[in-house]
Amino acid sequence: MTKYVYTFGAGKAEGRATDKNLLGGKGANLAEMNHIGVPVPAGFTITTEVCTIYTNEGKDKTVALIKEQVEAGVKHIEKIMRLSFGDRENPLLVSVRSGARASMPGMMDTVLNLGLNDDAVVGLAKKSGNERFAWDSYRRFVQMYGDVVLGMKPENKDDIDPFEEIIEEVKKARGVENDVDLTVDDLKALVNRFKVAVKKVTGHDFPTDPWDQLWGAIGAVFGSWNNERAIVYRRMENIPAEWGTAVNVQAMVYGNMGDNSATGVAFTRDAATGENIFNGEYLINAQGEDVVAGIRTPQQITLEGSKRWAKLAGISEEDRKNKYPSLEEAMPEVYQQLCEVETRLENHYKDMQDLEFTIQDGRLWLLQTRTGKRTGAAMVNIAMDMLEEGMIDEKTAVLRVAPNRLDELLHPVFNTEALANASVVAKGLPASPGAATGRIVFFADEAQEWASRGEDVILVRIETSPEDLAGMDAAKGILTARGGMTSHAAVVARGMGKCCVSGAGSLKIDYKARTMITKGKTFKEGDWISLNGSTGEVIDGKVETKDPELSGNFGKLMNLCDKYTRMHVRTNADTPKDSVVARNFGARGIGLTRTEHMFFEGERIKAVREMILAENEEGRRKALAKLLPMQRSDFEGIFEAMDGLPVTIRLLDPPLHEFVPHEEANQKEMADEMGISVEEVKNKVESLSEFNPMLGHRGCRLGNTYPEITEMQVRAILEAALNCKARGIDAKPEIMVPLIGTKKELEMQTEIIRNTAEKVFAEKDQKIDYMVGTMIEIPRAALTADEIAEVAEFFSFGTNDLTQMTFGYSRDDAGKFLPIYIDKGILEVDPFQVLDQTGVGQLVEMGTQKGRSTRPNLKVGICGEHGGEPSSVKFCHKVGMNYVSCSPYRVPIARLAAAQAAIEDA
Amino acid sequence: MTKYVYTFGAGKAEGRATDKNLLGGKGANLAEMNHIGVPVPAGFTITTEVCTIYTNEGKDKTVALIKEQVEAGVKHIEKIMRLSFGDRENPLLVSVRSGARASMPGMMDTVLNLGLNDDAVVGLAKKSGNERFAWDSYRRFVQMYGDVVLGMKPENKDDIDPFEEIIEEVKKARGVENDVDLTVDDLKALVNRFKVAVKKVTGHDFPTDPWDQLWGAIGAVFGSWNNERAIVYRRMENIPAEWGTAVNVQAMVYGNMGDNSATGVAFTRDAATGENIFNGEYLINAQGEDVVAGIRTPQQITLEGSKRWAKLAGISEEDRKNKYPSLEEAMPEVYQQLCEVETRLENHYKDMQDLEFTIQDGRLWLLQTRTGKRTGAAMVNIAMDMLEEGMIDEKTAVLRVAPNRLDELLHPVFNTEALANASVVAKGLPASPGAATGRIVFFADEAQEWASRGEDVILVRIETSPEDLAGMDAAKGILTARGGMTSHAAVVARGMGKCCVSGAGSLKIDYKARTMITKGKTFKEGDWISLNGSTGEVIDGKVETKDPELSGNFGKLMNLCDKYTRMHVRTNADTPKDSVVARNFGARGIGLTRTEHMFFEGERIKAVREMILAENEEGRRKALAKLLPMQRSDFEGIFEAMDGLPVTIRLLDPPLHEFVPHEEANQKEMADEMGISVEEVKNKVESLSEFNPMLGHRGCRLGNTYPEITEMQVRAILEAALNCKARGIDAKPEIMVPLIGTKKELEMQTEIIRNTAEKVFAEKDQKIDYMVGTMIEIPRAALTADEIAEVAEFFSFGTNDLTQMTFGYSRDDAGKFLPIYIDKGILEVDPFQVLDQTGVGQLVEMGTQKGRSTRPNLKVGICGEHGGEPSSVKFCHKVGMNYVSCSPYRVPIARLAAAQAAIEDA
Repeated sequence: MTKYVYTFGAGKAEGRATDKNLLGGKGANLAEMNHIGVPVPAGFTITTEVCTIYTNEGKDKTVALIKEQVEAGVKHIEKIMRLSFGDRENPLLVSVRSGARASMPGMMDTVLNLGLNDDAVVGLAKKSGNERFAWDSYRRFVQMYGDVVLGMKPENKDDIDPFEEIIEEVKKARGVENDVDLTVDDLKALVNRFKVAVKKVTGHDFPTDPWDQLWGAIGAVFGSWNNERAIVYRRMENIPAEWGTAVNVQAMVYGNMGDNSATGVAFTRDAATGENIFNGEYLINAQGEDVVAGIRTPQQITLEGSKRWAKLAGISEEDRKNKYPSLEEAMPEVYQQLCEVETRLENHYKDMQDLEFTIQDGRLWLLQTRTGKRTGAAMVNIAMDMLEEGMIDEKTAVLRVAPNRLDELLHPVFNTEALANASVVAKGLPASPGAATGRIVFFADEAQEWASRGEDVILVRIETSPEDLAGMDAAKGILTARGGMTSHAAVVARGMGKCCVSGAGSLKIDYKARTMITKGKTFKEGDWISLNGSTGEVIDGKVETKDPELSGNFGKLMNLCDKYTRMHVRTNADTPKDSVVARNFGARGIGLTRTEHMFFEGERIKAVREMILAENEEGRRKALAKLLPMQRSDFEGIFEAMDGLPVTIRLLDPPLHEFVPHEEANQKEMADEMGISVEEVKNKVESLSEFNPMLGHRGCRLGNTYPEITEMQVRAILEAALNCKARGIDAKPEIMVPLIGTKKELEMQTEIIRNTAEKVFAEKDQKIDYMVGTMIEIPRAALTADEIAEVAEFFSFGTNDLTQMTFGYSRDDAGKFLPIYIDKGILEVDPFQVLDQTGVGQLVEMGTQKGRSTRPNLKVGICGEHGGEPSSVKFCHKVGMNYVSCSPYRVPIARLAAAQAAIEDA
Repeated sequence: MTKYVYTFGAGKAEGRATDKNLLGGKGANLAEMNHIGVPVPAGFTITTEVCTIYTNEGKDKTVALIKEQVEAGVKHIEKIMRLSFGDRENPLLVSVRSGARASMPGMMDTVLNLGLNDDAVVGLAKKSGNERFAWDSYRRFVQMYGDVVLGMKPENKDDIDPFEEIIEEVKKARGVENDVDLTVDDLKALVNRFKVAVKKVTGHDFPTDPWDQLWGAIGAVFGSWNNERAIVYRRMENIPAEWGTAVNVQAMVYGNMGDNSATGVAFTRDAATGENIFNGEYLINAQGEDVVAGIRTPQQITLEGSKRWAKLAGISEEDRKNKYPSLEEAMPEVYQQLCEVETRLENHYKDMQDLEFTIQDGRLWLLQTRTGKRTGAAMVNIAMDMLEEGMIDEKTAVLRVAPNRLDELLHPVFNTEALANASVVAKGLPASPGAATGRIVFFADEAQEWASRGEDVILVRIETSPEDLAGMDAAKGILTARGGMTSHAAVVARGMGKCCVSGAGSLKIDYKARTMITKGKTFKEGDWISLNGSTGEVIDGKVETKDPELSGNFGKLMNLCDKYTRMHVRTNADTPKDSVVARNFGARGIGLTRTEHMFFEGERIKAVREMILAENEEGRRKALAKLLPMQRSDFEGIFEAMDGLPVTIRLLDPPLHEFVPHEEANQKEMADEMGISVEEVKNKVESLSEFNPMLGHRGCRLGNTYPEITEMQVRAILEAALNCKARGIDAKPEIMVPLIGTKKELEMQTEIIRNTAEKVFAEKDQKIDYMVGTMIEIPRAALTADEIAEVAEFFSFGTNDLTQMTFGYSRDDAGKFLPIYIDKGILEVDPFQVLDQTGVGQLVEMGTQKGRSTRPNLKVGICGEHGGEPSSVKFCHKVGMNYVSCSPYRVPIARLAAAQAAIEDA
């Protein structure tokens, strides 16, 4: 006979932690705790296999199949707990809970206090010495059972629960406001009215036989595996329907049976800092939910913790001792037992544990143990401490830290206390993490001006454009009303490691009036606001921030990563400043320098515009000649910062219209500067405008229609490299051609590059090694990568554009449907943040393989936003890339993800 | 010893027509003519293999290798022609010409009259009895040899030829204007001055030894295989460099040696109509180029042709007979011989031949025969006539017609005579073929208005948008200043079979002034212009047009196609009218009905705008309810027209901003109509505007964010189908979801469609079969086609958008670089016209295969513009599609291409 029911209790269990697939996560851990001597209320787990049988064969056949085993399971509980199911003296009450292989919080049904009926309630009252508690438990049970098992919960969650309706009626009749003001008699009346309602709606009496109750509840839990919420959740999380859920039936224990009872939660280490101190909160004579409900002030478990808490809360030692004693003081024996349990659990699971416990009548019961959630800092500290303690090995330590969570360690953060009183006035997307506080300005040039006189400013824009770059750099943070996680503002801000909240749609920004209206409040230029780039919150007024601390453990972790990684991590950096930041974070070179960002500063934009306005090649060359020395000096700075490391420089990429002003006032200014009419400026702007600039005249299409631009840039790069060489700096330029779609495009650009190089080398009578490669960012480039690799010495996947074109999504416009798509589960994640391995990934893999089919030693990397996103980094490892490149502040994240990929791969 | 030289002459030849690879096209045909008894001046061909040797080993080695064989070849010519190389009495003169495997007109070098020197010129003068002719030939030879062999032709074709400079000097000194006015002595002086110039530039004397001349010329021809022009041409035409060219050395014959000599060209059938009559032109005592140069009026070869010509030209029979006698009259014996030759050649090659002949001293020589170029109509008629005559079989007949050329038979054309005096004032792209003449209007509504009162109008716009649809329909032709071959104007016009010239960039259109300025001339509203949609020419004034005639042969050809084709051809049609046109052209259903085109007419646009302005779902539903009956009746009309054939209807595709007005005046009008403020309209327009609408909120993204739109459209389709059914019409709807990128998107749309269908069927208590499928137009859809086919019952490749996204080209903007790219050879063709098989084709093939991997019976078609382009249709056959769909007027073209693909495949 197949075993469908696994019992546990009193230090024994038929299952183990490793039986997760069969018993679900919860059931497996309950079994495991028994094996290691942790006191757990007895119970049994019905396997996930039964769920599948239930789905396919229905309830009757399922019950027939498992009846004997479940009955034996209940006997097992009765025996250990010395209670009897439905007994008037000593009733056994049980909880019936779901528990799938993967955690699906809140998705499926639970029934508590099962076993209560008119007899058992008497026994419970007697045992607890608290008749009100007993009848309140009873009425809660009838309500929960009615809702969950008998299907009386309204489908639409806005509709009122029939039981709540009755409660409201009774409260109204009794003239009381709160549930707690209802008397025992009121509760008894409620139970009766509930039962009448059940009969009325379902046509059947409420089941009084505990066995009937139990079978009903088991069926309901199995059935809930296929409720709509659960199906949607599974679809989102890619959980197969055939996994099924287990059902856990476990004896109830109560922490609210008197002053010798209590309930609490605890962590084996500090979840905020990672410090190795046991800590937690509890409440005497309370139920589990009371601790978190915030009605009563929870007390600390340890004495030390209690004292620290009191100090922060401004409570005197006297008061603390009397009103909020620690568990260590209040129940020293149970406390000792709990300490032993926590040590045992942590040593057993070899990770920080999050415990739930109940003390019933002086006896400790553990209800749950699981790996504790923690901050990024705690992740790092706990992993490195446990490595030091010998609890885990190096690889495990590396795998213990979620790469994304490192972000928290790398940006300024709000002072937690200061944040408590913050008034959130709008919410946008958490576009670039960190915290920023400053005074509102609406124009980039003014941001620079204010900042230059020492003001902290937040640049507030409907959206940003490359013209705003210097202003963004000067601001402490950037707030936009439009644009997604990969809008211009977001991308640039992340690159700068600067706090940014984008797409805060509720903001009404009026540039003319210099106001920003949100939630009815009008903010003016100069008003203080604060941005939380990690949550997307916009906060009224000043909030104190603090700088992150990169602890010693962080450095140790990074060193460990380098020991195990196969891929290098480079950075996307456009300035010497960014390069230095990235290098300090461990970048092994630059994977992407966007030369166009250099075009906006000061005099340069004038020369750029002169070039754009030129009628012919000669005019363009004249203007380009002015740009040459400026670009050259930019590159020198970057080569210097990256001395000895490769620097990939992308040739001009954006369409030319990004360099001309689109607002009337700026057009006039430009006309005056250039000594031409506003009409001429307008005509040029108009002639450059495009329906779909993303798919327009940009990238190598510029370089192939205006070869002189490529010539100037290549000259600037190589002259800079030679100048550096003369100064003893080891410059390693890699010239990257953007937006290649056909081999011939690259051939033509390569010819220009090589010819220019020969000229420069001849002029300077000196050579330097350099490479010529290309971005793979157009689907066709990936599809024909074998041809392209015949010319390209390296590939760098530009997965931002590749994602745009493969999905047909414009990053700038996708805000109109992407959030809805993610909401409806059409997309699991934003493909601009997490590389779409199914679709875009095929092109990346194909491009890599095809490229290496014609050039086996082809160097392959990625320089899209995805290069700093952990799951995407792991994908890059899988397809065999040589490196990933990301913004400076994501370099440590990518290093960790790359190391994890290598370890997981081995 | 390898044979490098193949001789021919006097009815014998060492080569055959099948030796094209070795002897080149010209050499092989010269050999072949000898085999079939056609008189050809003797000569020999140096093989293409020698070209490769020449390229790799250089001239000296090559000469050493072939010296003996070439000398034997010259002897062979001397013997047959009874002439002697360099002889003072009886000199042999030869031509030295290139001749590659594939025709490369004008790409490589030719030298004529080779063998002339101070001795030979005497012999030539004596033999011809014409000293002037002999010296003119000599001076031409020195000039040609100097240019071609000695490299004196200036590299830049705008620079003046040094020989022409000398001629100009001499003419000036002699005070004459034309070359013909130079005397024999002048010519003698010229030869001397030419020789001096040669010596001065090259440092060597002009070679007087005919053998030196010959080796020089052979080397020059081989060398010209690698000149820049030829390299570029080969790259464009995909001709491998290793093919090489052959060199043909052939005895010169002269048609200008007196009244017993003549020269001419002839066609074995009428190249314009295909009629089976021998025809052609000749001139007595003339050289080949005189016939085409237009200095003398050429005479007709046949008497019948001559009479017909005289009548058209208004020449009396008297005059004709005396001044322009036919060859039949002038040289009856030679004429008889020529008739025999033409019959023999056509019977041998089994195709219409284009002949060049020379009569020297009463003796007929054929210089060339090749397959004659012809009009589309002639192609059809000749193929079907030859089939009837038993000359060729059915498959050959089908293969004989170039599918694209059918186009000429399907649109109105200009009356050829009328066109002769036309003044072309601008040139744009030949966006939609045919001819149109009418009066200029600048606004769509006025086009309708003018047309309704019987005026022929040409709609002239900077660019068109869907709002202009009705006006475009009312116009005879459309002219735009902006946009490419696949701009809105072009696509819609081709769909309507309406003449269109797009992207005529030189036009300055001023809507306010209602003027169009080009070449300094201002056209006003109401002025007459004419458009040639097949050439892109814009013509000043009225030009007479005539309707095409679909001859019986055309129908026969189409029937033959259906016999051999595997794929069906459907049409893209949005109206019953278009559907009827397409059905008459043999469409087997509709592959694409764009429902949005129906949204613009009359009251509809109001309802559409009401929907767009609605604040919530309820408001949208209200507006959609108004649209329902209109859409339903549209569909009924289309189902009726396509009774019994499948009709694929695409759900709403374009972004909503296409339905709102962008010009201030129209916005005001809309505000008045809707009873709201202009501000509100502007705000809505603004909120709908997108950076890259092509990649924005459109297609199924609309249907998934506003499911009620899908519901309304599905309801309209199925109610229409049921209504048709009730009337005995067999409606076969196929509902197509646009812009799918993920399986889940399609799942969600399919659910809406199926649910709506169930509702409609329940309401009407009747069912109808229908299919649900999707466009594959996003790269990701092709990449994940296996998943998508789990839901889709059919695929239709939308290769317009697929090309845009795979290349990253916006059709609307590509005009800025595509022409340059094609010019520079980066692209061989416009990928929006000819499917890019290398890149986009990979996705099409992958999508088809992956789709059928999960749904083996998946129906696959194409509905992009490429569905009517022959090479693309053949590709569709190759990847195994079930059908192609194209605009009505391209249906016959696609049918022919599909049949050819099937025949070629077998």
